[in-house]
Amino acid sequence: MTPKNYAKKLGLPPGTLIYTGKEKNHFEISILDYDENNFGEIQEIDVEASFSFKDSPTVSWINIIGLHNTEAIQKIGKYYGIHPLSLEDILNIHQRPKIDHFDTYNFIVLKMLTYNQESCEIESEQVSIIFGKNYVLTFQEKSGDVFDSLRSRIKAANGIIRKSGSEYLVYAIIDAIVDHYFLILEHLDENLEELESEVVSKPSLETVQKINQLKKNLITMRKSIWPLRELLAKLLRSEFVLESSVIYFRDVYDHTVQIIDIIESLRDISSGILDVYLSSVSNKTNEIMKTLTIIATIFIPLTFIVGIYGMNFAHMPELEWEFGYPFVLFLMAGMVITMIFYFKKKKWF
Amino acid sequence: MTPKNYAKKLGLPPGTLIYTGKEKNHFEISILDYDENNFGEIQEIDVEASFSFKDSPTVSWINIIGLHNTEAIQKIGKYYGIHPLSLEDILNIHQRPKIDHFDTYNFIVLKMLTYNQESCEIESEQVSIIFGKNYVLTFQEKSGDVFDSLRSRIKAANGIIRKSGSEYLVYAIIDAIVDHYFLILEHLDENLEELESEVVSKPSLETVQKINQLKKNLITMRKSIWPLRELLAKLLRSEFVLESSVIYFRDVYDHTVQIIDIIESLRDISSGILDVYLSSVSNKTNEIMKTLTIIATIFIPLTFIVGIYGMNFAHMPELEWEFGYPFVLFLMAGMVITMIFYFKKKKWF
Amino acid sequence: MTPKNYAKKLGLPPGTLIYTGKEKNHFEISILDYDENNFGEIQEIDVEASFSFKDSPTVSWINIIGLHNTEAIQKIGKYYGIHPLSLEDILNIHQRPKIDHFDTYNFIVLKMLTYNQESCEIESEQVSIIFGKNYVLTFQEKSGDVFDSLRSRIKAANGIIRKSGSEYLVYAIIDAIVDHYFLILEHLDENLEELESEVVSKPSLETVQKINQLKKNLITMRKSIWPLRELLAKLLRSEFVLESSVIYFRDVYDHTVQIIDIIESLRDISSGILDVYLSSVSNKTNEIMKTLTIIATIFIPLTFIVGIYGMNFAHMPELEWEFGYPFVLFLMAGMVITMIFYFKKKKWF
Amino acid sequence: MTPKNYAKKLGLPPGTLIYTGKEKNHFEISILDYDENNFGEIQEIDVEASFSFKDSPTVSWINIIGLHNTEAIQKIGKYYGIHPLSLEDILNIHQRPKIDHFDTYNFIVLKMLTYNQESCEIESEQVSIIFGKNYVLTFQEKSGDVFDSLRSRIKAANGIIRKSGSEYLVYAIIDAIVDHYFLILEHLDENLEELESEVVSKPSLETVQKINQLKKNLITMRKSIWPLRELLAKLLRSEFVLESSVIYFRDVYDHTVQIIDIIESLRDISSGILDVYLSSVSNKTNEIMKTLTIIATIFIPLTFIVGIYGMNFAHMPELEWEFGYPFVLFLMAGMVITMIFYFKKKKWF
Amino acid sequence: MTPKNYAKKLGLPPGTLIYTGKEKNHFEISILDYDENNFGEIQEIDVEASFSFKDSPTVSWINIIGLHNTEAIQKIGKYYGIHPLSLEDILNIHQRPKIDHFDTYNFIVLKMLTYNQESCEIESEQVSIIFGKNYVLTFQEKSGDVFDSLRSRIKAANGIIRKSGSEYLVYAIIDAIVDHYFLILEHLDENLEELESEVVSKPSLETVQKINQLKKNLITMRKSIWPLRELLAKLLRSEFVLESSVIYFRDVYDHTVQIIDIIESLRDISSGILDVYLSSVSNKTNEIMKTLTIIATIFIPLTFIVGIYGMNFAHMPELEWEFGYPFVLFLMAGMVITMIFYFKKKKWF
Ligand SMILES: [Mg+2]
Ligand SMILES: [Mg+2]
Ligand SMILES: [Mg+2]
Ligand SMILES: [Mg+2]
Ligand SMILES: [Mg+2]
Ligand SMILES: [Mg+2]
Ligand SMILES: [Mg+2]
Ligand SMILES: [Mg+2]
Ligand SMILES: [Mg+2]
Ligand SMILES: [Mg+2]
Ligand SMILES: [Mg+2]
Ligand SMILES: [Mg+2]
Ligand SMILES: [Mg+2]
Ligand SMILES: [Mg+2]
Ligand SMILES: [Mg+2]
Ligand SMILES: [Mg+2]
Ligand SMILES: [Mg+2]
Ligand SMILES: [Mg+2]
Ligand SMILES: [Mg+2]
Ligand SMILES: [Mg+2]
Ligand SMILES: [Mg+2]
Ligand SMILES: [Mg+2]
Ligand SMILES: [Mg+2]
Ligand SMILES: [Mg+2]
Ligand SMILES: [Mg+2]
Ligand SMILES: [Mg+2]
Ligand SMILES: [Mg+2]
Ligand SMILES: [Mg+2]
Ligand SMILES: [Mg+2]
Ligand SMILES: [Mg+2]
Ligand SMILES: [Mg+2]
Repeated sequence: MTPKNYAKKLGLPPGTLIYTGKEKNHFEISILDYDENNFGEIQEIDVEASFSFKDSPTVSWINIIGLHNTEAIQKIGKYYGIHPLSLEDILNIHQRPKIDHFDTYNFIVLKMLTYNQESCEIESEQVSIIFGKNYVLTFQEKSGDVFDSLRSRIKAANGIIRKSGSEYLVYAIIDAIVDHYFLILEHLDENLEELESEVVSKPSLETVQKINQLKKNLITMRKSIWPLRELLAKLLRSEFVLESSVIYFRDVYDHTVQIIDIIESLRDISSGILDVYLSSVSNKTNEIMKTLTIIATIFIPLTFIVGIYGMNFAHMPELEWEFGYPFVLFLMAGMVITMIFYFKKKKWF
Repeated sequence: MTPKNYAKKLGLPPGTLIYTGKEKNHFEISILDYDENNFGEIQEIDVEASFSFKDSPTVSWINIIGLHNTEAIQKIGKYYGIHPLSLEDILNIHQRPKIDHFDTYNFIVLKMLTYNQESCEIESEQVSIIFGKNYVLTFQEKSGDVFDSLRSRIKAANGIIRKSGSEYLVYAIIDAIVDHYFLILEHLDENLEELESEVVSKPSLETVQKINQLKKNLITMRKSIWPLRELLAKLLRSEFVLESSVIYFRDVYDHTVQIIDIIESLRDISSGILDVYLSSVSNKTNEIMKTLTIIATIFIPLTFIVGIYGMNFAHMPELEWEFGYPFVLFLMAGMVITMIFYFKKKKWF
Repeated sequence: MTPKNYAKKLGLPPGTLIYTGKEKNHFEISILDYDENNFGEIQEIDVEASFSFKDSPTVSWINIIGLHNTEAIQKIGKYYGIHPLSLEDILNIHQRPKIDHFDTYNFIVLKMLTYNQESCEIESEQVSIIFGKNYVLTFQEKSGDVFDSLRSRIKAANGIIRKSGSEYLVYAIIDAIVDHYFLILEHLDENLEELESEVVSKPSLETVQKINQLKKNLITMRKSIWPLRELLAKLLRSEFVLESSVIYFRDVYDHTVQIIDIIESLRDISSGILDVYLSSVSNKTNEIMKTLTIIATIFIPLTFIVGIYGMNFAHMPELEWEFGYPFVLFLMAGMVITMIFYFKKKKWF
Repeated sequence: MTPKNYAKKLGLPPGTLIYTGKEKNHFEISILDYDENNFGEIQEIDVEASFSFKDSPTVSWINIIGLHNTEAIQKIGKYYGIHPLSLEDILNIHQRPKIDHFDTYNFIVLKMLTYNQESCEIESEQVSIIFGKNYVLTFQEKSGDVFDSLRSRIKAANGIIRKSGSEYLVYAIIDAIVDHYFLILEHLDENLEELESEVVSKPSLETVQKINQLKKNLITMRKSIWPLRELLAKLLRSEFVLESSVIYFRDVYDHTVQIIDIIESLRDISSGILDVYLSSVSNKTNEIMKTLTIIATIFIPLTFIVGIYGMNFAHMPELEWEFGYPFVLFLMAGMVITMIFYFKKKKWF
Repeated sequence: MTPKNYAKKLGLPPGTLIYTGKEKNHFEISILDYDENNFGEIQEIDVEASFSFKDSPTVSWINIIGLHNTEAIQKIGKYYGIHPLSLEDILNIHQRPKIDHFDTYNFIVLKMLTYNQESCEIESEQVSIIFGKNYVLTFQEKSGDVFDSLRSRIKAANGIIRKSGSEYLVYAIIDAIVDHYFLILEHLDENLEELESEVVSKPSLETVQKINQLKKNLITMRKSIWPLRELLAKLLRSEFVLESSVIYFRDVYDHTVQIIDIIESLRDISSGILDVYLSSVSNKTNEIMKTLTIIATIFIPLTFIVGIYGMNFAHMPELEWEFGYPFVLFLMAGMVITMIFYFKKKKWF
């Protein structure tokens, strides 16, 4: 959960471009270029060919996939005037979500989370956003993201996005990511409900491990959402947001606050489930002990009594009595009944 | 406990009206229209017919039930000039309580809580309030609310409400909701007192589940009351409240603070009950173990001794002694007495 | 611990006077009227007769006992110009401690706590204070309070109280209440010390219940003292306190901070005692198990061996050996010694 | 740990001088009087004789021991113009550390802590400091303090103290007290290290009690150091400190922050030791249970089998077989081997 | 973990130079002197010889190893005009990380952490930095540090360091130290992952001790990183940083925030592992108890039955029956089957 590959970065000057992730297959640049009346979509464009969009008056969303290609990213950085420290942060996929304002661009890092249904783990991909007047650069580690419906919305001129500038596009990107967080919370909430019934019906050590996995997922989310909330608060306080966009960023800010609320509630509830689990295990141990104690307390003394009359002493008058055997049987029956009354009184069964 | 139906909202532009709740039966608009001297009440009015009340000089409380009718709500939104983001929040029943100020209206979302006596769960219904100079719109998910006595108070011209404006009506609505929170706290407090005696008289795994349910209810309340407190604090700090209303909003603000205090106390106390439960279970296990150990420690050695004299060796001189049998009985009685002294000394019984 | 009788208040307009307490026996107004040179004391005065003291130049302490008499309190409220919301708060004995400034008076609510030695519970009585230039009204639920020595101090002109105004009297009332909190803390501290030795000498389930009762008492105190501290901080920040009184209010403010410190310490210590209790119970279970295991491990195998020679096979050569019996006895003695060495090595006894 | 003797103070006017401590043996005033070139030391001076030092241009450190002598302290208070509330705080040895600025003097209360090696408890003595332009009064409850090396430093003109004013002396006094806190932390840290090895080598109930004592000591320290830190922060923010002294007070402020850090670390670590203890006890119970279960599971079935052939039925063919006895012995040996394999597989030994 | 050797410092005037560490072998001064075009490196230079670099226009990094040599450090302090309190802090290796601004220099203390793979403990070495216009003094306790790659970077003129001033060098030193913190976090994260699988596969008391060691390491890191974050925040707020350096210090500040996030996550996760451990131990005890109870509950009653027919009564008719023996065997088989059904129903196996 903590940074990997950090050894590679040790001792290098700040701004050295080192990719700290694992994915290294695919590099691709694709562009969505639009204004109120025009729309263009280009896939797999060359690095140099993409530069022309920077100063076009249309809004240009340049999406770069594949952070292992440090050369290409360096070229882009140079053309767009991106500070080496920003570039370093883009490539370091362990960067904490944050926003930095520069004279010519704004720089946002955040985490795109997806829920892996098989491993029940949350997977995180870093998305970095560089935006200026008429362009938005997004950097992703690998292909596949949560923006497909946003892209079709732009294509279909759905909502006000085609009438708005690059800032609104940045909002829409963040909103798509945050909306996905709610989807993950739905999964975690389902998990929790399953655990709530499992802990009562068939609690096992696996239940604890699942509770723990859930808690780890909540920790992962918390690590992404708290800095995202700070980021948005900082954005709202800054003078860099257009008056008309404030209401949208405030809306997504509200969502981050709500997500934090839900995460804290889920944490509290999952702690409660652990309490039920532990109580359930000690109750079971109790039950088992009771069974053992009842059986042992009834039969051990009886076995002792029959042992007495199994002794081979030459002189044991009881053995010769005509009703010695039934007498002993009655005696033992009496003892059993007494014991049972005693246990009933103690409410052991 | 977390948002459901979020999948429906994914990728849609902000302000798209999607109802995220379940209730879909009934749609109804009803109006209470009053000033100091006049009072009118209209039930089941048409959407369009309701528009005339917007600019009437009387205070008009327009209550809309049934959020699934997105068409009607869109119409209302258009007529009243409500921002699409506000409308979206009204329909999203998972919205966190909040207040937003717009130029022409103020927008409040909060949670109306009721206690379901059967399931011992708290049920939540979202109430959204839009208010301007002479009108107050309230949006509810389904019929049934906590405002009946408020309505009769208006009808009966009880208190100062008929002499006050729309802002005071908003206060009265919030106050009715918050007063109901105290009612729920009474239920939870009764629960707690029952649990406090149950945990001593007959603790069982169910007790832990009830404690847990109580804690979940407290979490639900906390999720509603903390943002409500923020909301009221923001309202009190804003310039949008008339000087004459401040004292009333401060009163209800005080109540939210008190509710938070009580919730925290109940949480602490319920944690204490769990401690008693766990101690009680380990005490019981202890008692059971003691019984087993006393019985086993007394009778297992005795059984061994009678086993000795049950052996069939040809040469066992004790078996031929005249007083061999009574001697062994005395020996065993001595052992029992010694054991009992030992256990007494150890304070085992 | 939470408000009772709230159902009565539901739906009523704010400022409706509903008494939410239980005590309904006694109603009485008594007055202490003084300045540097004069002193008068009147008991059981009529409501109307008490009004004349409002504008007298002497300091008039009008003490009203019996909140069930809402009529009388309404009259007083009317005469003194008390806002209906203040009157409502006076009658609602679950009001959170607070201070409100009005144009003509200041309004303080706080809790007078006393320790019930028999039930070991803290009892709370609400005291409301309304004060203006030359008068101080105090409202109590029932007779009996912590002000007796304050009254004799006034009578005896002890200290500077007779030379000071109504504000100093308010300070003296609050100080008397806060001083009593220390007395309660002494009781709780004694409790704690008893528990600390009980948990070592004879821990039982009752010990846990006592720890829990102590924690509940601390919660009760906390609920009274935190808002009282806020109240005093607000008072000190306000412009409504005379410069000469500030030092006295700061002194009592310091005390509330100290009380909070002590409460938190006591909480931490009582949690520690619970840890000792739980450790002590598991230690005991451990001891019991050890005894059982030692006895069972020694005698169960022996019983098996004597069982072997109790079998009735026709052909068992050992049974015929001359020294078969003593040989088996030696064998068993050897086994016992081995076992004891094993347990010694494992440090089981 | 909470105030004692509070009953004495109930109902008295503020500023009444009541000593709330226990030590009542010794009263003594001693004086250190110095400037850059002169040094004088007077022991056991009369109250009245000490007054002359107040206005002398040299720095006069007047140390008063024995708070039970309220008369003498009243006289001093009167001469130095000390407010009755300050005098009350000096005598109330349960006063929370604080600083108060008055027109003619500054008033500091703090706690001098020492570690009692025998009882392993921290002992606290209240030190009050009143200082003006050329004098510093210190009030202690009993003889013995941590200032001996400070006194010799003044005598030997070591460091800059002889060249500095009364404020620097106050700093030096506080610094001596705070330096002693580190010494106590060394003791507590040693305790902790012993406990860390004890919990592994020979854990017992005493270990828990020692952990608890350690936690109580940390609570005691926390109660002294947090207000001391506040006090110093307030001092640094105030305008009453000479520019040249700021750096020294900041240094001792840094130390209080560091002490708080260490205390919190020690608390966390001691909680960890408790976890190890509890795990160790449940591990042991586990071990004991395993031994019992292995023995019982092997021998109880065997005892049953030999019991079968101990029955006295007339018709039991096995008893007549020639190899019946060895056959049963082999059968039982087979059972034992099976059991042992089973336990091996389960990794029970 | 707390200061050692504090006894030595007791009572000494502030600014007395006492080294509180253990390492006392090696003293060495080495210098790196550079500007954009020149680079010089001097090892083992004399104290006095090093003074010439103070005012040279090149950036001079003077690295002093060996704090036991208080004399040399006093000389350096005198020449560079370092305040005695700063010198005292340099020698006190328990100093909390902090920054102090003086007129002629800035003073930073921080902790260089390294992970000892053998003991699994974090080792801390204090690094103090004094920097002025053209010089940077670093003080270390012993030889060996994390700056080797920084030195080669300077030598190789890698990055902008050779073009930048002393402030940038300070940044680079802090950055190297902070980068190393990430490396330690990688180790701790690996630890955690091992523990996560160990706790499931073969949990033992050692696992708890390892979890505890991990927690202690996290506490150690927290004690270093929180004040370091404060230090950098203070630096960023101050006017002492060149505009061009701000972005670099902000970058390293971001890292400290991220480290804090990770530490808190690791703490939460390690608490979760402890929960799994405890659950796993009680599950095991449960399993063991179940085995014992099943065996005992089946065989103890059977042993009683065979004991009955082992009695030697003269008159026991069953013993004479022809099918008495097989009848009893069938009876017992029936009992065993019943028991097994009972246990199956209870889901005991
Ligand atoms: Mg990991
Ligand atoms: Mg670096
Ligand atoms: Mg970096
Ligand atoms: Mg960076
Ligand atoms: Mg990261
Ligand atoms: Mg992607
Ligand atoms: Mg959204
Ligand atoms: Mg749910
Ligand atoms: Mg959306
Ligand atoms: Mg919204
Ligand atoms: Mg909702
Ligand atoms: Mg409804
Ligand atoms: Mg209300
Ligand atoms: Mg919340
Ligand atoms: Mg009120
Ligand atoms: Mg109650
Ligand atoms: Mg009401
Ligand atoms: Mg009220
Ligand atoms: Mg009363
Ligand atoms: Mg007082
Ligand atoms: Mg005082
Ligand atoms: Mg005490
Ligand atoms: Mg008093
Ligand atoms: Mg006091
Ligand atoms: Mg002393
Ligand atoms: Mg010091
Ligand atoms: Mg240590
Ligand atoms: Mg010192
Ligand atoms: Mg220092
Ligand atoms: Mg070094
Ligand atoms: Mg770095």
